[in-house]
Amino acid sequence: MPVTGQLYILSAPSGCGKTTILRQVMNNIPGLAFSVSHTTRQPRSGEKNGVAYHFVTKEAFTEMRDTNSFIEWAEVHGNYYGTSRQAVADQLQNGQDVFLDIDVQGAAIISNDPDFDPVSIFVAPPSLTELERRLRGRGTDSDETIALRLQNAAKEMDAASQYQYLIINDKLADAVLVMQSIIIAQRSHSSRLPDGTAISLETDT
Amino acid sequence: MPVTGQLYILSAPSGCGKTTILRQVMNNIPGLAFSVSHTTRQPRSGEKNGVAYHFVTKEAFTEMRDTNSFIEWAEVHGNYYGTSRQAVADQLQNGQDVFLDIDVQGAAIISNDPDFDPVSIFVAPPSLTELERRLRGRGTDSDETIALRLQNAAKEMDAASQYQYLIINDKLADAVLVMQSIIIAQRSHSSRLPDGTAISLETDT
Repeated sequence: MPVTGQLYILSAPSGCGKTTILRQVMNNIPGLAFSVSHTTRQPRSGEKNGVAYHFVTKEAFTEMRDTNSFIEWAEVHGNYYGTSRQAVADQLQNGQDVFLDIDVQGAAIISNDPDFDPVSIFVAPPSLTELERRLRGRGTDSDETIALRLQNAAKEMDAASQYQYLIINDKLADAVLVMQSIIIAQRSHSSRLPDGTAISLETDT
Repeated sequence: MPVTGQLYILSAPSGCGKTTILRQVMNNIPGLAFSVSHTTRQPRSGEKNGVAYHFVTKEAFTEMRDTNSFIEWAEVHGNYYGTSRQAVADQLQNGQDVFLDIDVQGAAIISNDPDFDPVSIFVAPPSLTELERRLRGRGTDSDETIALRLQNAAKEMDAASQYQYLIINDKLADAVLVMQSIIIAQRSHSSRLPDGTAISLETDT
């Protein structure tokens, strides 16, 4: 088994079932974790520092941002959110496989980051028609929002071929199986195994 | 789904359980096949040409050999056996994932063959001590043969790090799961998908 974890970057248009797939995969396979983001927003009741988020002041966040400590960051409704390079590295060092839920632009940046060697996965709907059906089925979005989501999805899918794996979420169980298979296979990839794994087999003769 | 098959090259020291693993994997996953070798030996009763082997004359074999039609070939007990480049290509073209059971030297040659883009898998025992225990347990080999097999295994395992995947066959069910995962994951690898898979999603809007 690998001694350090594998970083996965995961992108999907909204409504493709990415969260549902990941939740099932995480139930079935041990050693998986989401990356823990830094945020300047106030902790909600029950949110522990370092679990849901790393809670930091705006000053601390700005300093991290200005010293290139974030893989990516964004401002949402006046609060800052960022993925710290060090936080991800610590999770990987602990032997966890870390999932980074990230958009197409962010994925392109971290794919070329020499500090990580991420495996990239794109989750796509079987078709835009089906995606529209699912978005309408949720009943949470206005017609305008759905039109915007579909427009974004078409754009994002143009980038899908840049990813190492493409999971088409037609049937949920199949998509879960493929995601699990990618993770299990990767744990036996020779790039993931400690140096000398094969040679160490000789020492007990 | 990919339109053409994936070539897998598979090596393992004798006694590592490679055949048992593959048999179970082939029962569980459709679309897998062994490569069909060419041979100059006589067909046994019930052996159909093109299924167990492609049966050819010594002249035909020699001509194929001399025109570089074999990926690899060998003479065993006066008969010739060879893996034809075209036969493998035909199986792949039919959409089958093809397994090539091949030694370390043969694997190195075909890994660098631009006509194929093989995924290489090495199956190793948990240790040489355990391999010896298994070989003795079979009760089929003399002490001398076992000593030779262990010597060869140690040499072959030196080459294991050249393979893309290393499956350590400690528990059979785990090894089967890893092999299946490699195959399932590979079918969603972007290099395996037809050009424009993502773009084609847009056409039905």
